[in-house]
Amino acid sequence: MSTPGSNVSIPLPLAPSVPPFPRGVGRIPVVKVEPVIEGGAYAAQAVVGEAFPVSARVFREGHDALGARVVLTSPDGQESLYPMTQIWPAGLDIYEAWVTPDSQGRWTFRVEAFSDPWRTWLHDARIKLDGNIDEELVWGQAQQLLETFAQQTWSTDRSTSTKLKTLLKTHFADGFTSTSTTFLQELIADQDILERLERNPLCELLSPTADFPLWVDRRQALFSSWYEMFPRSQGAKKTKTGWTSGNFTSAAGRLKSIAAMGFDVVYLPPIHPIGSAFRKGKNNTLTPEPGDPGSPWAVGNKDGGHDAIHPDLGDFDSFASFVAQAKKLGMEVALDFALQASPDHPWVTSHPQWFTTRIDGTIAYAENPPKKYQDIYPINFDQDPEGIYQECLRLIEFWVDKGVTIFRVDNPHTKPLQFWAWLMAEMRLRHPDVLFLAEAFTRPEMMHGLGKIGFHQSYTYFTWRTEKWELEEYLTQLAGEMAPFYRPNFFVNTPDINPYYLQDGNQAGFAIRAILAATMSPSWGMYSGYELFEHAAVEGREEYLNSEKYEYRPRDYSATPNLTGLITSLNRLRQEHPALQSLRTIRFHDTANDQIIAYSKTAGEDRLLMVVSLNFTETQEGHLHLNYDALGLDHTKEIHVRDQLSGQEWIWGTEAYLNLYPAHPAHILVITQP
Amino acid sequence: MSTPGSNVSIPLPLAPSVPPFPRGVGRIPVVKVEPVIEGGAYAAQAVVGEAFPVSARVFREGHDALGARVVLTSPDGQESLYPMTQIWPAGLDIYEAWVTPDSQGRWTFRVEAFSDPWRTWLHDARIKLDGNIDEELVWGQAQQLLETFAQQTWSTDRSTSTKLKTLLKTHFADGFTSTSTTFLQELIADQDILERLERNPLCELLSPTADFPLWVDRRQALFSSWYEMFPRSQGAKKTKTGWTSGNFTSAAGRLKSIAAMGFDVVYLPPIHPIGSAFRKGKNNTLTPEPGDPGSPWAVGNKDGGHDAIHPDLGDFDSFASFVAQAKKLGMEVALDFALQASPDHPWVTSHPQWFTTRIDGTIAYAENPPKKYQDIYPINFDQDPEGIYQECLRLIEFWVDKGVTIFRVDNPHTKPLQFWAWLMAEMRLRHPDVLFLAEAFTRPEMMHGLGKIGFHQSYTYFTWRTEKWELEEYLTQLAGEMAPFYRPNFFVNTPDINPYYLQDGNQAGFAIRAILAATMSPSWGMYSGYELFEHAAVEGREEYLNSEKYEYRPRDYSATPNLTGLITSLNRLRQEHPALQSLRTIRFHDTANDQIIAYSKTAGEDRLLMVVSLNFTETQEGHLHLNYDALGLDHTKEIHVRDQLSGQEWIWGTEAYLNLYPAHPAHILVITQP
Repeated sequence: MSTPGSNVSIPLPLAPSVPPFPRGVGRIPVVKVEPVIEGGAYAAQAVVGEAFPVSARVFREGHDALGARVVLTSPDGQESLYPMTQIWPAGLDIYEAWVTPDSQGRWTFRVEAFSDPWRTWLHDARIKLDGNIDEELVWGQAQQLLETFAQQTWSTDRSTSTKLKTLLKTHFADGFTSTSTTFLQELIADQDILERLERNPLCELLSPTADFPLWVDRRQALFSSWYEMFPRSQGAKKTKTGWTSGNFTSAAGRLKSIAAMGFDVVYLPPIHPIGSAFRKGKNNTLTPEPGDPGSPWAVGNKDGGHDAIHPDLGDFDSFASFVAQAKKLGMEVALDFALQASPDHPWVTSHPQWFTTRIDGTIAYAENPPKKYQDIYPINFDQDPEGIYQECLRLIEFWVDKGVTIFRVDNPHTKPLQFWAWLMAEMRLRHPDVLFLAEAFTRPEMMHGLGKIGFHQSYTYFTWRTEKWELEEYLTQLAGEMAPFYRPNFFVNTPDINPYYLQDGNQAGFAIRAILAATMSPSWGMYSGYELFEHAAVEGREEYLNSEKYEYRPRDYSATPNLTGLITSLNRLRQEHPALQSLRTIRFHDTANDQIIAYSKTAGEDRLLMVVSLNFTETQEGHLHLNYDALGLDHTKEIHVRDQLSGQEWIWGTEAYLNLYPAHPAHILVITQP
Repeated sequence: MSTPGSNVSIPLPLAPSVPPFPRGVGRIPVVKVEPVIEGGAYAAQAVVGEAFPVSARVFREGHDALGARVVLTSPDGQESLYPMTQIWPAGLDIYEAWVTPDSQGRWTFRVEAFSDPWRTWLHDARIKLDGNIDEELVWGQAQQLLETFAQQTWSTDRSTSTKLKTLLKTHFADGFTSTSTTFLQELIADQDILERLERNPLCELLSPTADFPLWVDRRQALFSSWYEMFPRSQGAKKTKTGWTSGNFTSAAGRLKSIAAMGFDVVYLPPIHPIGSAFRKGKNNTLTPEPGDPGSPWAVGNKDGGHDAIHPDLGDFDSFASFVAQAKKLGMEVALDFALQASPDHPWVTSHPQWFTTRIDGTIAYAENPPKKYQDIYPINFDQDPEGIYQECLRLIEFWVDKGVTIFRVDNPHTKPLQFWAWLMAEMRLRHPDVLFLAEAFTRPEMMHGLGKIGFHQSYTYFTWRTEKWELEEYLTQLAGEMAPFYRPNFFVNTPDINPYYLQDGNQAGFAIRAILAATMSPSWGMYSGYELFEHAAVEGREEYLNSEKYEYRPRDYSATPNLTGLITSLNRLRQEHPALQSLRTIRFHDTANDQIIAYSKTAGEDRLLMVVSLNFTETQEGHLHLNYDALGLDHTKEIHVRDQLSGQEWIWGTEAYLNLYPAHPAHILVITQP
């Protein structure tokens, strides 16, 4: 039995500083606190300014009233209190508060339950005064409680304290009199007093839980708009003697248009030298022709490995200038981090221990029997964990030093989760601003695991969720149970995924998927060519024909028709509306039509309602039933809605008639209630 | 803010000795381990000899095979290994093993995941040999693995080791030859070798979780049959001058009949002096007549409190002799532990700090405004926790010393959960054989909480679950998610609950509920009078008319008709069939009739199927579809079923025709498959 990986010591910025010792119940029991990831082994995650729910089951013996609150502790030790409210149905004893951390770093939260003698009194007093029972006793208890309140609020809420003192002087100075009951009746109906006292509860038998870990990232970890491009294609030219590659300088010429569409992340596939051994030819063939550039994911050759730049693309200067131009346009550059090597990678000779040697002495290439991937050597993380872990950290810091702030990690699920846990923790310590997107398309537990150990964003199943029921189910999971550890990035396509839904090239279909991605998920992404409705597929597969992964593919982005206008509008709306920058507030509304999906998002007073047809060939009608509660709307008033795509405006109640057709498949409605 | 209760130091026998530090993922990730109660703050619970499932999500990077097992550690440090198997659907990565602790006390369990190079090889070899790929390499890997196996099994499984060594000598001595591929084909089809190797997996990258706490109680904590009786009624006589109370001596006369019915616990309502202040009269009136004995739950008067015996019932000698006679008949005596005081209780003067004093200086009686319960003073646990906690422990040990081995705790949900956590932990340390039944009828979270902190058994919602769907739903919860912390005791009635279902006195109805209780739950209970079909109710309420709580109620147990025969049969079957002594194996089967419920229980080869009509007035027909998998039956064979109530026998397949009528509302079938 060997356990090499377990010798690596893992720093714990994502874990609690003091592990949340599993405590028994306190005087007022609090159980099932959420969000707690794996018993507190990993921090729940949020971003600066993101509101999210903390909940728990809180209950007590007997009939006396209880209260509960969340205490949020910032990295510098400041505590904020959030009163929790009980969630329907009451029989389940669920309490909840939405909290909002306001700075980056390592926070904690706990739940505090307490006995609330004022609410106990209020409950009993209402019944007893109604029934003329024990009035003098009730009056005496009121005096005692109000005196405590007056004292407690003296330092924090002077006006309440003063008001209470006046009441005490006026109504309790002469003992219980004939007017005392009248006073009590007025007191328990006085909304102003009741609200003041509710803000300053008398907390007896205070029972705190352990402090659970919460890591807060910068806002872009949740809210970002990605554009993927191959720099070698941008400016590539076919000449008589073959192709001339595009490079950072020519690719930089495209940045302005990308920024104009409103994207804020430009993601580049690997920019390193590409192996020549077993190089793939066009359409993933094993027989490349001279001049075929190869797949950028076959990293490394004699010119260098993961810390080198493909000579065709330029050098560190031209890369720096590409990054600088992007930055000037308000965009970050995301680099691919593909931990694998071509057989020509320098590591193969310098560090053979980072690969698996087969019993015949050769290095093991990637396999999924009977398939062989001889152009790729997978890394073995167990033979020299210390060495390969440190090398990976060095590579990441190498590119951070070159201005890279985001990494899109290729196939993280084929490397040990423990390695990523270590790397994510190290990076939180060293460069908390650097973000990682996990490109894992695999079973749920691994995808969740990558999020739990610290990946900031994850690719998702979105491209395969095209029916209304499955979109609703998936988004409900993402915005609910998964939200504390898994931030979705809805890519509408990737070089690896040419979705079946889009393969007949219907332009309304492209619009629909872009609208869904951009308004359902706070992060979304697009691989270049989508705006031109590219859709030619390898027959029967979700792959692009003549895939850019294996060949140059310059495009005429000025071609019409294109989706540039819609994309620009979507990204502008995303910038303008905080509601679209959140995930956890999404709620679905009934449309009485399986092909029309309706969902809302809110952020304070910013309320958006999306109504989208999922059918790109036929007109769809429906009757919307709007859930006013989910939107925090006043039931007694109508609402004003304005479509941000068409400019149309309507006055609606809870019901509305819908009519969507392929040329206008969606409403993005701003809701106001005058 | 005051937190008196939190100063009590709580011993931790139910909690882990080393708290299960929430660990990050290991080399092979294991998450969502179950059963873990509140992150390991409380021990999962089982009884000696009880099989229960341990499960986890186990997954890894890439395509290599993994394995997982449970390691169960006994109180004396012995470890047992249980291989885990993957549960359908595979995409969820759930692994499970059923484990069985075999002694009382404080156990732990952990899950260990590992890389399984043999299964990786086997998977690849099957594909590669089929496709004539890499045969020499596959052969070389086999040699290496078999050598490791031979070495590893040398000390533990000599015959396997010898067999492997012979194979190695025969097939690998001369290198790869023309027959090597044939040998490999035979090897991967050799069931004997495969099973030997599966029993001794090559565990690489072994990744253990923390050790989670498990507390194992004596078997009776799960499996028991309770009979409740008021000793004052048994032998009570009405004379010209009023009633003469029954007592322990006269009550002991009933023990033989109770034992003959097969009960093993005799539960007595409080046997202490009864308060006279605000004593309740017949039918819970506030106007008692002279001679009314009062409610035994109004504990204490000038003759003593919780450590005294009501003079009418006898003395410590006659109590001892009652206990001894019960024991001789194979029964334990359960005493009521009702933590409350009548206004005459000695504590009221000796320890006023154990009660709440109102601002008018009087002691607070129980209230649920506008209702007042002036005959009861509730205990205040927060003013002198150290004092009242120790006094309660003293009382329990006082009665343990008198031969009491079980306590039925009255209304535990009206006392602090923290107090019970302390008491249960202390008792596990001092008297691990003493059992506690929680009489809490309240919301789920409190009922669950009482189980989590250590109550051995709990009253349930059973009396209010009369429809098929709700019985199935409730039992599925009880036998599944709740089973690690909540052991149900299905009482068919209690002095407080005269179920609506039985109030018209239909005898088939009484039979049906007894059959359900006795066969669904390993613990069940009955309050005397049930066997005589007593059903007179306070109109519109689930209360008995002329309740024995407030008056003497001698009965003629020889009256006919009665349910004694059926009850005796049920308890005999429960004793004879281990399947009926388990909860976690219950599975429901389709009957195509909402009024016929079918469920099975298994314990090894002991398989029982219950088919019960829920309708006590009409004949019910149905078609049973038997789930062979749930019963571990061979699909290719018929089964033999024998009704333990009627003696009828049938040969069945997966389908059977059912016909139940009020006079024979149920089959209790023993299944055998010859």
